Amino acid sequence: MRDPSKVLRCRDYRWQGVELKPYKLEAAPYRDVSRQTLLGEGPGEDALQFVTRYFEVLPGGYSTLELHLHPHAVIVLRGTGQVMLGDDAHSIAPFDCVYVSPGTRHQFRATGKEPLGFLCVVDRVRDRPQVIS
Amino acid sequence: MRDPSKVLRCRDYRWQGVELKPYKLEAAPYRDVSRQTLLGEGPGEDALQFVTRYFEVLPGGYSTLELHLHPHAVIVLRGTGQVMLGDDAHSIAPFDCVYVSPGTRHQFRATGKEPLGFLCVVDRVRDRPQVIS
Repeated sequence: MRDPSKVLRCRDYRWQGVELKPYKLEAAPYRDVSRQTLLGEGPGEDALQFVTRYFEVLPGGYSTLELHLHPHAVIVLRGTGQVMLGDDAHSIAPFDCVYVSPGTRHQFRATGKEPLGFLCVVDRVRDRPQVIS
Repeated sequence: MRDPSKVLRCRDYRWQGVELKPYKLEAAPYRDVSRQTLLGEGPGEDALQFVTRYFEVLPGGYSTLELHLHPHAVIVLRGTGQVMLGDDAHSIAPFDCVYVSPGTRHQFRATGKEPLGFLCVVDRVRDRPQVIS
């Protein structure tokens, strides 16, 4: 079998061969968020027990306020914004790292002039988010 | 119990409260590499089944040429360099994403004037690397 190791080159926050997708397919409150799944769901990537995604929130946009039992490991790559963790708002900027623990409600907002882009790593097998309305 | 969710702020590629460590404790060929473990091994982080580390290789430095059964998901954050994947050398630059599949020998080299810094996510429970000499 061919070795599935590879380099996905990045240019302007788009990765080679990676599809730009909507943030969510189901109905949920959010605004101007896109998703790219970099690693963990493609062919030859079955050995990965975690999925590396890149989300981008346009200025003024926000992700769904939600919670779930799986944790998130997040690294900001571009822009500035805010993350809600429970009742607390924290400012975030490039390379800040965010831990969202199981059951903590959370939401990302792009508060600057540039899009807020961040990596978010999750378990491959995980529970579905519960939307908070 | 207090919610362990948190933001680790980054400044100049150092994360708040994260220790700068040697790349490896055991004897192995490498040069000018440091490690910061951002998430996955600290108190309150037991829910994470994967560990997010940041490695930095100074100009002219390199990581150990090695292989192991666990895969790597890598994202370059700064600098330019080369990654060896099996017999192939690939140039890498910021935000390029590298998949190192199980059993592929690999090595990172900083070939530019700036340090090569990259995130590397691995399973929390994993086999030990096998050094290739």
